[in-house]
Amino acid sequence: MNLPDNNSFQATLKQRRQKLAETFSEKALLWSGCAPSRNFPANTFLFRASSHFLYFAGLNLENAVIELDSGKLTLFMDNPSPESILWGGEKPSRDQIAATIGADLAYPYSELKNYTGEAATIPISDVGIYQQQCQCLERNIPQPSEATGKDLALIQAIITLRLSHDESAIEQIKQAASVSIKAHQAGMKAAQPGKTEAEVRSAIEQVIMAHNLTCAYGSIVTVHGEVLHNESYSHTLESGDLVLADVGAESVGGWASDITRTFPVNGQFSPTQRDIYDLVLAAHDACIENVAPGVEYKDIHWQAAQVITEGLVNLGILQGNVSDLLAMDAHSLFFPHGVGHLLGLDVHDMEDLGDLAGYAPGRQRSERFGLGNLRLDRALQTGMTVTIEPGFYQVPAILNDKSTREKYGEIINWEQLDRFSDVRGIRIEDDVLATSEGAAVLTASLPCQRNQIEELCDR
Amino acid sequence: MNLPDNNSFQATLKQRRQKLAETFSEKALLWSGCAPSRNFPANTFLFRASSHFLYFAGLNLENAVIELDSGKLTLFMDNPSPESILWGGEKPSRDQIAATIGADLAYPYSELKNYTGEAATIPISDVGIYQQQCQCLERNIPQPSEATGKDLALIQAIITLRLSHDESAIEQIKQAASVSIKAHQAGMKAAQPGKTEAEVRSAIEQVIMAHNLTCAYGSIVTVHGEVLHNESYSHTLESGDLVLADVGAESVGGWASDITRTFPVNGQFSPTQRDIYDLVLAAHDACIENVAPGVEYKDIHWQAAQVITEGLVNLGILQGNVSDLLAMDAHSLFFPHGVGHLLGLDVHDMEDLGDLAGYAPGRQRSERFGLGNLRLDRALQTGMTVTIEPGFYQVPAILNDKSTREKYGEIINWEQLDRFSDVRGIRIEDDVLATSEGAAVLTASLPCQRNQIEELCDR
Repeated sequence: MNLPDNNSFQATLKQRRQKLAETFSEKALLWSGCAPSRNFPANTFLFRASSHFLYFAGLNLENAVIELDSGKLTLFMDNPSPESILWGGEKPSRDQIAATIGADLAYPYSELKNYTGEAATIPISDVGIYQQQCQCLERNIPQPSEATGKDLALIQAIITLRLSHDESAIEQIKQAASVSIKAHQAGMKAAQPGKTEAEVRSAIEQVIMAHNLTCAYGSIVTVHGEVLHNESYSHTLESGDLVLADVGAESVGGWASDITRTFPVNGQFSPTQRDIYDLVLAAHDACIENVAPGVEYKDIHWQAAQVITEGLVNLGILQGNVSDLLAMDAHSLFFPHGVGHLLGLDVHDMEDLGDLAGYAPGRQRSERFGLGNLRLDRALQTGMTVTIEPGFYQVPAILNDKSTREKYGEIINWEQLDRFSDVRGIRIEDDVLATSEGAAVLTASLPCQRNQIEELCDR
Repeated sequence: MNLPDNNSFQATLKQRRQKLAETFSEKALLWSGCAPSRNFPANTFLFRASSHFLYFAGLNLENAVIELDSGKLTLFMDNPSPESILWGGEKPSRDQIAATIGADLAYPYSELKNYTGEAATIPISDVGIYQQQCQCLERNIPQPSEATGKDLALIQAIITLRLSHDESAIEQIKQAASVSIKAHQAGMKAAQPGKTEAEVRSAIEQVIMAHNLTCAYGSIVTVHGEVLHNESYSHTLESGDLVLADVGAESVGGWASDITRTFPVNGQFSPTQRDIYDLVLAAHDACIENVAPGVEYKDIHWQAAQVITEGLVNLGILQGNVSDLLAMDAHSLFFPHGVGHLLGLDVHDMEDLGDLAGYAPGRQRSERFGLGNLRLDRALQTGMTVTIEPGFYQVPAILNDKSTREKYGEIINWEQLDRFSDVRGIRIEDDVLATSEGAAVLTASLPCQRNQIEELCDR
């Protein structure tokens, strides 16, 4: 581990702690977690600390705990063992780490039990660590959706902080995005008829790995963009296919980027692909145009729905009055997910808290088709970073569903839709920061105009 | 998931079940496990089923359980939910999977509780799944090292089976190895002065990813080969450095390969690097020469120790009589690990069972310096696959240790050792199958002769 040596790193962490202390006056303990093992203990997945820990401690420290108390930071972790130095080389000591992150005190992990008091905490997803938390605090720690009292107060205080990113966070997201952009460009160049999805994915992820970064989430790289969370890479690319690539690097400090581009295998969109691409792009542009502090994110979602519905009516795929179609969620037939989500230390930021971060107090998920998948329903605020990712998909599980056919059969012009069979899935996704001037697209240097995409494909 | 459609897949699985039934007459339940989450539930690491499950079920099925009873196979898993089909696309049903793996019966997961009876099992490393196992069997399942009765009998029966690979397993290891070999070649070509370890690693892993495979373990790609389990990739390669790359792909069916090569950044070994490389290679060749059914693996370890000790005496680094030096573990100063380990579905095969698989009944780890790190102490048998991986390292934690200096100070010619400061770490590792004819090197098509390595580097 290379320790950062600039003062601004420490100042950022200090500021976060002090801000927390302004709204939360009790003691908090945050666990970092441990690397899950891949079948046997010596073979682990790459460790990634809990995001709440990372937010205040800044470093990806395994098996560590921090205590936050009135702006004061105490670190609990063990020094590297002689065994770990023998096998893993020299590592910074607890005191060196404490000095780097500006901890006021530092103790071995075994001391933690003497400092727990009545601390609040947030549960870790790993069951083993969660049980350590419960044992240490001598109580059953509720899941975030069930949290009450000081635990809930801590969650709310942290949400308030993490909803608006500070300069350091934005810098980290930009760094992650800049690598993701190069990665996507490599993917567009690598995609050729006859290659496999796995080969394109490898070209993309190689760039991220070459920058010594990891992916913030499992990459989607597929000619079957209609499979929204596609996790397989086995298809061979054919001329006429579109590749949907949803890939984002994570910065050194753990901040996520999240970008989707859809591009033609042979370097040229077909006329039908062009029509739908431009429609999705129009929705994307309209949404970004609307991003500004104070704007309700749900309205941006509806903005996408409106543009998509109008476009599909113009293309003759949907039939009827646009407002009626929107009212009956006809757009969700082809755009079944939300227009985006919070972006931060998690790609779906703070989703470990259920909907507590994504949904403003008092709000909850809709029961409506499509709208129920919206992950964010809050007013935007300065420093908030969200994805904007409208899409169009022909999902068999939706379009062939009997009850869907009964409800929506009449408003779809199936014959016309058949003409668009070479458009299985298109999504265009950027990372957008709400600023006092409106919107800053952090991923803007990766073009999304149709002709620019064709140029990047460079066949 | 693409289901395999050949009969030999099913026949292999059936044969494994029947062989188990020959030595284990009770009922066994094996859990596959689940993908650990990366901070929040929707962001998971890539799922890898437990190896014992995979051995008998053949497919990487998440949240599944198999019952093995007198050669009969029952599968417990849920059909894909409508939600998972909407987001993840069409997936094979339970019945399709059951037909593919030749299961006699198949039930939803919820039915499992009605079929547990007095079954034996092997605990899963994931704590959440482990607790499901205990709950389901209504007893506290001991860790393998504490297992007794039917659990221990099951473990022993499975070890007996998995120690000797069948044809299908060997074919899978060969497939994994063939991709690893291409990956290593790409790494040798990519390494140039000024590039980073991360860039070389990305060139290597890209090949594995492009074949739609994963790594069997975290790659080691470093100019600091003396850090035995180096997990960082931040150094810049300089002319004169050696790169140590320990990288292995895992086959579609989950079988591991494990290869190490050490090569010069500038394409040419220095005279001192040559001396040590040839010494490690001599140990490597001598060990492989000795692999055959009936040979004690520990003797192969000592063979490596002997060649290394002789070589270091010849180079003037160690001083004294070879037998005396071996008796005092002087070789462990520079070769502190074991000469290799079992290779199979796990890169350290069956290491989830502690030393039960690696050590023959009645044997246990030595207390001796270096020898205590030997992972395998059994007689080789036909079908057993092991790594052969001698090495030479200048580990600061060993060589600068005060008590080491006291004990070994006299037998090291420190001045002479200083001349070899450009040899921080060298390891040469191949995967070797014991056959009735002796040894088959499954990774032989990746050369390890010094001049061939220089040719592959192709500067």
